[in-house]
Amino acid sequence: MIDIRFSSLAARLRRSEIRELLKLTRQPGTISFGGGLPDPAIFPNDEVERATVKAIREQGRLALQYSPTEGEPFLREQAAAYMARHGERADIENILITASSQQALDLLGRVFIDPGDPIMVERPTYVGAIQAWRTLSADFQGLEMDNEGVIPELLEARVVQLTAEGRKPKFVYLIPDFQNPSGINLTLERRKQVLDIASRLDLVILEDSPYRELRYTGEMIPSLYQLDKDGRVVLMKTFSKVFVPGFRIGWIVAPPTIIEKLVMTKQGTDLCTSAFVSMIAAYLLQDGAVEQQVAVCRELYGRKANVMLDALDKFMPDLDGLSWTRPEGGMFLWIKLPEYMDSFELLKDAVAQKVAYVHGSSFYYDGSGRNELRLNYSYPTESQIEQGIERLSRVIRARAEKQEAAGTAAE
Amino acid sequence: MIDIRFSSLAARLRRSEIRELLKLTRQPGTISFGGGLPDPAIFPNDEVERATVKAIREQGRLALQYSPTEGEPFLREQAAAYMARHGERADIENILITASSQQALDLLGRVFIDPGDPIMVERPTYVGAIQAWRTLSADFQGLEMDNEGVIPELLEARVVQLTAEGRKPKFVYLIPDFQNPSGINLTLERRKQVLDIASRLDLVILEDSPYRELRYTGEMIPSLYQLDKDGRVVLMKTFSKVFVPGFRIGWIVAPPTIIEKLVMTKQGTDLCTSAFVSMIAAYLLQDGAVEQQVAVCRELYGRKANVMLDALDKFMPDLDGLSWTRPEGGMFLWIKLPEYMDSFELLKDAVAQKVAYVHGSSFYYDGSGRNELRLNYSYPTESQIEQGIERLSRVIRARAEKQEAAGTAAE
Repeated sequence: MIDIRFSSLAARLRRSEIRELLKLTRQPGTISFGGGLPDPAIFPNDEVERATVKAIREQGRLALQYSPTEGEPFLREQAAAYMARHGERADIENILITASSQQALDLLGRVFIDPGDPIMVERPTYVGAIQAWRTLSADFQGLEMDNEGVIPELLEARVVQLTAEGRKPKFVYLIPDFQNPSGINLTLERRKQVLDIASRLDLVILEDSPYRELRYTGEMIPSLYQLDKDGRVVLMKTFSKVFVPGFRIGWIVAPPTIIEKLVMTKQGTDLCTSAFVSMIAAYLLQDGAVEQQVAVCRELYGRKANVMLDALDKFMPDLDGLSWTRPEGGMFLWIKLPEYMDSFELLKDAVAQKVAYVHGSSFYYDGSGRNELRLNYSYPTESQIEQGIERLSRVIRARAEKQEAAGTAAE
Repeated sequence: MIDIRFSSLAARLRRSEIRELLKLTRQPGTISFGGGLPDPAIFPNDEVERATVKAIREQGRLALQYSPTEGEPFLREQAAAYMARHGERADIENILITASSQQALDLLGRVFIDPGDPIMVERPTYVGAIQAWRTLSADFQGLEMDNEGVIPELLEARVVQLTAEGRKPKFVYLIPDFQNPSGINLTLERRKQVLDIASRLDLVILEDSPYRELRYTGEMIPSLYQLDKDGRVVLMKTFSKVFVPGFRIGWIVAPPTIIEKLVMTKQGTDLCTSAFVSMIAAYLLQDGAVEQQVAVCRELYGRKANVMLDALDKFMPDLDGLSWTRPEGGMFLWIKLPEYMDSFELLKDAVAQKVAYVHGSSFYYDGSGRNELRLNYSYPTESQIEQGIERLSRVIRARAEKQEAAGTAAE
């Protein structure tokens, strides 16, 4: 045995139960609503091939070389142009290219968080943000949500209280559009209220925006970044959901003082993002392939969401406390089970019935959400969605009947 | 003004003087020996295009999707096969795909280093390792080198002393082959001694091996990884120097207990490395394109190194204390100036004369090396090398004459 002594951080890390369990879902015949994967059947292979050949032939010397840490200039330019087409204005100097949103979360965490620093997040929130910031020993402060998103009054009250204690939050992290995991959309009214509070209390907002373009029903509403008049919203964009995840390309839009710190931090982290993929991504933004892919995703995911909602309406038992969100975009919907059901326990039954999901407590920093769960509808086929929801409904019904029998027996 | 409060780490970060100065070197006509860039004239564009088309057409569904955090299985397989062809055996389970060596350094740092932990590094050492581990507040402990690499007796004495103080180093970081920045190669005899000490004192060794294949003269000698019988050497490989840097692909070979911690850490950092580039890289390893490129690099860089050595012999003044290394591979050579010369001060004169390098103190964690500097010969053309060395020699000669005049005046 070698004398390997890990850092206290690494010593604390434990293989997650969920990862072990989800390995079982790779068994043939299991229908997985677990991951957050796009449907590979619609990957735009031809467009990627065309852009790649162009990048190598026309920009080979740059595309295969190191790029500046800030990112390949051509991609920063095309990212700004893409945003402008969608009503979001940004100067190239305000853009840092990253290895998708996960690196953005890591870098922003390192630049803002000292151990014990309070930060505000939605309840539930993105599991990757919890992972990135837990390693920095952030003090997560939760914001309750209803069907219109975070509740502004609660945000204000909590920030005022923390500030009075000398512990003003470093930032407020929000996923306003079709939130992961809940599928909830922050309403326009609420967006304005949140920004008004941020302005009065002088808060930095991190707006994570991977799903914004994937609205398949209802009216587009402005992003926090668009509504912000002060320059206090830091925006995170990624290719992963609107194009393909295999590129690992995204970007952060922020004021230059923040970009400067992020660049210096990124230098020690990975030196620079791949110039090769950056150049390809820039051509794809330039030639409209991204908007074209968004249109394909919207149509398909909208249809799949409806298949899932119809199947839920059709198969789910009528139980007190059982409900789900009805997303207008994105990739996920969120189920609340009756209080007595534990979604992690239930997952074992579900996997036995060859259907999988992610249990709710993954999305809470404090282990809440035991009777909640997330379903993804972008990855499975329409017939898998229908069949999978039927299986899941059976599992939930069986659990409810068991509870009822126990209740009757106790009487 | 927004109330932006950075972490104490970010607050400490300062834009480096050298980066500002090196911007000047992009002026037309300036010859830069500064970066560590491969020569883009030999980038294997056709091979990359062929592998890319294959990856998209034959593996599109996987290549454009998320990959496992451990890395794309096909690439892990091909990395192991590549290593085996070069006498280094590794199981696929021991391989983690990374965004090149810089991410390997970042992840290994996070997994091993708590603030104040002693780690052993060569003096001078790779600037990127200093950057990555300084942010973790590592206690750098330096190992003096001579022309045969680190001096084993000094390593042993220092580790024994630190261990007696209850501060045994977390690891020993070495770049045995054609070290960056010095160009020095650790001799076979010394490699065996280092491993013997590591075995007796039970130390973990991190072997950074980006240049190993780029030997253009002399006999290949086994890596520490090859000589290691205990499994205490963690190996870092990268595509950047032997193929192209634009991919940002590399890998770590380590025992499974370490790989497991690295995987969990990587998950919060960037989720996974690009499946797209990984798949392309795997095809390039499989079809022999990497070995083919190595042969091209060796031939060209060997020629360029000779041009630089000849120019140094021809143009440099004959001064007490002026010397340089004569590398047998890699991309760099290292100059020691007379004690009274400050390579950072001198860089201003050099840039005025349209020639640039990196001053020595960049490669020391404690600001030593003020009379040392690094020259890169892989990037500039042969005629630029000759002309650039002539300019640099003139700058050094002028500085020496100024010193002599001052000395004479003082007499």
